Amino acid sequence: MFESAKRSRVLFKPQDLRARRVIASCRKLLSERGAAMTASLAKATLDQFRALDRKGQARFFTDLLNEFSPDPAQVLAAAKAYAESATAANLSRLGAVTEPPRQELFRRLNQAPNGTATILHMRERLLELKREQPELDAVDADLRHLLSSWFNPGFLRMVRVDWRTPAYLLEQIIAHEAVHEIQGWDDLRRRLESDRRCYAFFHPALADEPLIFVEVALTDAMAEAVAPLLQTPSTSKDPAHATTAVFYSISNCQPGLRGVALGNFLIKRVVDLLSHEFRRVKTFCTLSPVPGFVPWLRELLRQPDDTHPKALAQALRAVSNEMGSDPARIGGDGRSAAERLAPLEEPLTRLCATYLLYPGLVEAAQDPVARFHLNNGARLERINFAADVSKKALRESAGLMVNYVYTPDTIEGNHQKFIGGEIVASRRVRSLVLTD
Amino acid sequence: MFESAKRSRVLFKPQDLRARRVIASCRKLLSERGAAMTASLAKATLDQFRALDRKGQARFFTDLLNEFSPDPAQVLAAAKAYAESATAANLSRLGAVTEPPRQELFRRLNQAPNGTATILHMRERLLELKREQPELDAVDADLRHLLSSWFNPGFLRMVRVDWRTPAYLLEQIIAHEAVHEIQGWDDLRRRLESDRRCYAFFHPALADEPLIFVEVALTDAMAEAVAPLLQTPSTSKDPAHATTAVFYSISNCQPGLRGVALGNFLIKRVVDLLSHEFRRVKTFCTLSPVPGFVPWLRELLRQPDDTHPKALAQALRAVSNEMGSDPARIGGDGRSAAERLAPLEEPLTRLCATYLLYPGLVEAAQDPVARFHLNNGARLERINFAADVSKKALRESAGLMVNYVYTPDTIEGNHQKFIGGEIVASRRVRSLVLTD
Amino acid sequence: MFESAKRSRVLFKPQDLRARRVIASCRKLLSERGAAMTASLAKATLDQFRALDRKGQARFFTDLLNEFSPDPAQVLAAAKAYAESATAANLSRLGAVTEPPRQELFRRLNQAPNGTATILHMRERLLELKREQPELDAVDADLRHLLSSWFNPGFLRMVRVDWRTPAYLLEQIIAHEAVHEIQGWDDLRRRLESDRRCYAFFHPALADEPLIFVEVALTDAMAEAVAPLLQTPSTSKDPAHATTAVFYSISNCQPGLRGVALGNFLIKRVVDLLSHEFRRVKTFCTLSPVPGFVPWLRELLRQPDDTHPKALAQALRAVSNEMGSDPARIGGDGRSAAERLAPLEEPLTRLCATYLLYPGLVEAAQDPVARFHLNNGARLERINFAADVSKKALRESAGLMVNYVYTPDTIEGNHQKFIGGEIVASRRVRSLVLTD
Amino acid sequence: MFESAKRSRVLFKPQDLRARRVIASCRKLLSERGAAMTASLAKATLDQFRALDRKGQARFFTDLLNEFSPDPAQVLAAAKAYAESATAANLSRLGAVTEPPRQELFRRLNQAPNGTATILHMRERLLELKREQPELDAVDADLRHLLSSWFNPGFLRMVRVDWRTPAYLLEQIIAHEAVHEIQGWDDLRRRLESDRRCYAFFHPALADEPLIFVEVALTDAMAEAVAPLLQTPSTSKDPAHATTAVFYSISNCQPGLRGVALGNFLIKRVVDLLSHEFRRVKTFCTLSPVPGFVPWLRELLRQPDDTHPKALAQALRAVSNEMGSDPARIGGDGRSAAERLAPLEEPLTRLCATYLLYPGLVEAAQDPVARFHLNNGARLERINFAADVSKKALRESAGLMVNYVYTPDTIEGNHQKFIGGEIVASRRVRSLVLTD
Repeated sequence: MFESAKRSRVLFKPQDLRARRVIASCRKLLSERGAAMTASLAKATLDQFRALDRKGQARFFTDLLNEFSPDPAQVLAAAKAYAESATAANLSRLGAVTEPPRQELFRRLNQAPNGTATILHMRERLLELKREQPELDAVDADLRHLLSSWFNPGFLRMVRVDWRTPAYLLEQIIAHEAVHEIQGWDDLRRRLESDRRCYAFFHPALADEPLIFVEVALTDAMAEAVAPLLQTPSTSKDPAHATTAVFYSISNCQPGLRGVALGNFLIKRVVDLLSHEFRRVKTFCTLSPVPGFVPWLRELLRQPDDTHPKALAQALRAVSNEMGSDPARIGGDGRSAAERLAPLEEPLTRLCATYLLYPGLVEAAQDPVARFHLNNGARLERINFAADVSKKALRESAGLMVNYVYTPDTIEGNHQKFIGGEIVASRRVRSLVLTD
Repeated sequence: MFESAKRSRVLFKPQDLRARRVIASCRKLLSERGAAMTASLAKATLDQFRALDRKGQARFFTDLLNEFSPDPAQVLAAAKAYAESATAANLSRLGAVTEPPRQELFRRLNQAPNGTATILHMRERLLELKREQPELDAVDADLRHLLSSWFNPGFLRMVRVDWRTPAYLLEQIIAHEAVHEIQGWDDLRRRLESDRRCYAFFHPALADEPLIFVEVALTDAMAEAVAPLLQTPSTSKDPAHATTAVFYSISNCQPGLRGVALGNFLIKRVVDLLSHEFRRVKTFCTLSPVPGFVPWLRELLRQPDDTHPKALAQALRAVSNEMGSDPARIGGDGRSAAERLAPLEEPLTRLCATYLLYPGLVEAAQDPVARFHLNNGARLERINFAADVSKKALRESAGLMVNYVYTPDTIEGNHQKFIGGEIVASRRVRSLVLTD
Repeated sequence: MFESAKRSRVLFKPQDLRARRVIASCRKLLSERGAAMTASLAKATLDQFRALDRKGQARFFTDLLNEFSPDPAQVLAAAKAYAESATAANLSRLGAVTEPPRQELFRRLNQAPNGTATILHMRERLLELKREQPELDAVDADLRHLLSSWFNPGFLRMVRVDWRTPAYLLEQIIAHEAVHEIQGWDDLRRRLESDRRCYAFFHPALADEPLIFVEVALTDAMAEAVAPLLQTPSTSKDPAHATTAVFYSISNCQPGLRGVALGNFLIKRVVDLLSHEFRRVKTFCTLSPVPGFVPWLRELLRQPDDTHPKALAQALRAVSNEMGSDPARIGGDGRSAAERLAPLEEPLTRLCATYLLYPGLVEAAQDPVARFHLNNGARLERINFAADVSKKALRESAGLMVNYVYTPDTIEGNHQKFIGGEIVASRRVRSLVLTD
Repeated sequence: MFESAKRSRVLFKPQDLRARRVIASCRKLLSERGAAMTASLAKATLDQFRALDRKGQARFFTDLLNEFSPDPAQVLAAAKAYAESATAANLSRLGAVTEPPRQELFRRLNQAPNGTATILHMRERLLELKREQPELDAVDADLRHLLSSWFNPGFLRMVRVDWRTPAYLLEQIIAHEAVHEIQGWDDLRRRLESDRRCYAFFHPALADEPLIFVEVALTDAMAEAVAPLLQTPSTSKDPAHATTAVFYSISNCQPGLRGVALGNFLIKRVVDLLSHEFRRVKTFCTLSPVPGFVPWLRELLRQPDDTHPKALAQALRAVSNEMGSDPARIGGDGRSAAERLAPLEEPLTRLCATYLLYPGLVEAAQDPVARFHLNNGARLERINFAADVSKKALRESAGLMVNYVYTPDTIEGNHQKFIGGEIVASRRVRSLVLTD
């Protein structure tokens, strides 16, 4: 390795040289046998990394891939020894040579001040790079593995966010809300009033940054549309009379944690907490978008008419009469979205039910929001027409929103059924499916 | 596996059956694909484990070893594939089949309320069992691996322990002090006065239990003996005038964390903190026992006299004249320990210097305390005679204590030298070695 | 005034001169019209005061009395003006010349760092001096007035004291317990277990010092004796099953606050808190000493036999047969207190009932503990024989203890009756009174 | 009293009756001799008061004045007794009959939950009523007296307000800023950056409401104008290099505390704090408005020209040529304020110096801001032209702002001089005065 590094040095650009210097620091850090210098070496290494420009970072990750992977020969030898005799010693040796040295490297980098935050930024960058260099997934696998261990739900602290929360945290809530944008402090305040709740997960190593947060409305019925939940000024109601908790938004704040499951644990914990605090609340539901619906519809409209069952074909025609082949272009002719949508209530709702219950009808991925909640053990309860007429919602979900219901007693069963391929849905939704 | 389990069921004793039930819960927990039920299943499994008696626990760990290890055939296949083509996919597959499923199991168990604490208790038990069943080290390796990751120094919080600390924490300090026993609350109080410091590491998942703590005296000279440091009542001095920080005790509180490096990081952090708070403190040293000295001496006395260099043989004779062949039996004839020790100052001190600088002289392990500090980058500075005349200290260290000095600028160099086999010691200590 | 000071200067002793210097600082402090220097002048003045010896302090208070009292001529003029015309201006002038300048002086001294604590120490000393110089009560009246205002219950914070409380606070609880001495940390711990409660009042200006605390046992019956409540080691019981809260000790920590009502507010707040936390607790009672009983008895025994009602005389004879004329000397003849007390159960209990219900029988003060609880609206419920056989309790209360019961609904009525001269007692206690 | 109340009952309107009921509750509260019911009676009384409309409140205060004042006859008798013999007992009696019973009433009301906050609201209303009923000042004197005692600086906690402060507190800072309006959260944020400081006083009985706050800019020179200090977005500078702390705004949040000195203590504390934190900061100055300047100028312009010294008359003519008789109408002819002000720099600045140094020139009050800072011991350092061109600042201060400088060593001396009638000003300001 050193040989080849020497030979190719002449080709190195300045950024490559800087990346090589970070790699050299990584080697030094990994070779430390005591702890005396670990933290300061880790700090120095991360400082060097941060000083790299984007190309330097790309180079750094490629080097990490090439130079800190397990040695195939050693792995094979250890695997053979273990196959011959499955002793503790052989297993230990196997584990030692199989684990990419990158993992220990990241563990040591984590000892720098703010190490965890920097590693999350590293991964954010790595995720971008992976799009063009899929082989970097091997490096990402190590980070994913470590982050899943470090951000184990057992280490997370759930915190209520309200008007007593320090401003610098609220500011982050405003910035990270991903589902229904927060317009400013007044808008935020409405979402933190006594009949609204917001909970966030924090990790001790990132004390000042929320990881993920969920927004809940305490109401007296399952919400049909999002506008009434967000409207300001509002008369907030006494939450002691609420019967229903509507989870209307869930947002991740750390792109570097993509793929590390947090949302399901957060929902579970909030359901537990609210059911203790509000004895009268019996229904826990979401009000969720269907972001895969319009792409699915577009795909279907592209297919020859006669390949569809009759009812389905009819519904598709109704939609295309009104919107043409792009259902996302609702409201394009001067009429308001609501006006154009009005005649489409039945076909759109039934198409959506069909989409959610038979995702395999065309070759398209299952709706990601549906998959998330169904896998968590929720039931597909109701499809709401014209429930969110914001631009983004029209473009992705044709304005539809779905209530998924979490019933503590059936969560486990529903989850098992979903694992087994069955989607648990209310009779009402099932009756909407367009089949012959 | 299931087959064999069925066939042998008739032989199971009740505790075995109970252990099998825990194993069954573990399987269930591992097979979960969503997060919906993880926390409650983990809780149930840990509850079952806690209900096992000691035999049941032994059985449980043996089952963990037998049934949750990697499959050798799969490992071999993946290793071959990776040897042929070192792609990300093959590496990922290799990692997946090589990591013992126990690791994921423990990660999931950790999601139960107080999961981390229970896992530490599990390991405490496992460490006991390992003495008789060394093959269980394969299970322990998984726990060690996870705990090192979870108790990464980047996640630990250093807390000052003083008289403002809640009583339930102080109580634990009293209970866990391992070096110089604390007699009660008055004794503790002396150790928390303004010219004394105590710092502990805490982990967020064990908020109410210290992991390790260190006790420091701020003085105006390197301490020669421990009694003056502990003495009550005392006139505590203004620490602003101190020139020296003496680390006179370091104690682990969690037997389940054995082998997870914490002490070195704690010392490093305390040195940093004190050097900022007390600008006049220039010397950071320990006052440490030499617990391997008496066993080493006894071994040496057992050997034929003429195998030793002359000076060494002479010193040994002086010791055996006074104490017989067991140097631990000091003071056995009615005279006080101090009286019997008095004539031995020179031979004992020189023997100790020889022991610390030439640990390989007889086939004995290096002194563990010396190894710890030297590996951390400290320098062996001074050997103090009659420095601790408590029973335990006489029995293990013949009453001697050692000052190791931590000098921030030379820590890295000293550590490197130690790794390279060299022991950094003061001229004074070196001059004491008994060589010809 | 200045004249006379000059003339007598020759007689001043050094401490008098020092006291005069404090008085001079007080004048300066009082003459300040802005706030610029108040805090630093106040600090300097209090520092000077602390440097005085006891004689100097006595001199200082005498000077405060002589030189910082209202001017009688000014007062009279203002009173006449107000009598002629009760205008706001005349009232204001009246208030200004009538309020002793000492009050404003103390208000300004309070602005020094730790001013409040020092003023409390001042008053502690003043209370001692008052015993010999009753005229100093005029100075004390000003302090009492200010402290009542500053320590208004609206400003006090009630804090639960338990095993999570910092050691330096627990130490104060041990030191100040006035009713049933705490022997050390183990003894304290028993009083802080889950079926025991301890609450203290704190004032924001004395954040590190409790003002007063009360100890409560949660039990399943009204306690008859104190020993079972204090006993260690103990099996603490689940307080969720408790039906009764026994207030078994209430202790003041600040001698400088004598006469400032705190205990009644603390009891009231604890009753409120516990009745919310433990829905099953229906009985709130005390287990209280009767410290005035033995002095009263001694007084009665001193009187001629034939002045008493027959039943009373008979009971007194029974007592004096056993104990002679001094009922405090129980157990003097080698028998244990319990043995000597045994035959006296009836006469002692009935004498105590008589004492508590007819305090005016001899010219003696009403029992102070009884007066405190009765005035707070409690009911005299039960007299317990041999309920506390500690030396102090035998000497003061002949081993008897009383349960006073606080019933939220009747507190107001009972208090009004007590104000009106009536003592509310249970039928049982009333039936014990020795009348003809 | 009761008689007359009965006779006039027929004339009572409903609100009067309600006010009478509050008064009746007050009597009951005052007559309580134990503490048993004080808090609940106090709560009931304050609830009743809050239910009164504005007329009812006016009636209530009038009744407080008429019925809870000292009895002139008793006062006179006690004053005579004290005049004859100035004993402690007579002094005590005098104090007791002279103190209006209202004071004890308010002390008891303070024991209700949130009593202090309600009493502050009471006083707010009373201050309004006083404008039309000056005789109510007798009631206000009692509140002022109590509040000065309760809000003794020794009890106040100074808190730094920054971006970590909870939103509900920041919201109050936005609402109460009285000098330079805060436009919203972004504007606020600039004032909380690292080179800005904001400190507030809190009282323990009003934990959620600041009493007063001050805003400070850390700069490298004495500020000449306010706009650069407030400007957003800004490049905040490293405060470690600052040499100057500019107090550019101080705002009261509690109208009910008017007349209770807080600002001077707050400035003093902040100066102390900053001089410890920033060793390089040597200059502590304000940037203050001169709100009395334009009224003074208008008054002067109204007087006959020839009564003034020549230089003064000349300056006045220059001003009136440009602005007419109303200097507040700057910018009225279409030109910007800056344009119209430009030619007036010299006359306006010199007129202002004359105003500040010779406030008695016309019969007008001294500038309140000047009086505040000069009495606190500050020095009048510099007059800045066109330093604040906001509407309010032009109307009141003709756009001028003044730097007052606080130098710890001279504060005491300056304050004493001000008390003695001398205004301490820089040579520069003194040289501007328009005298002949």
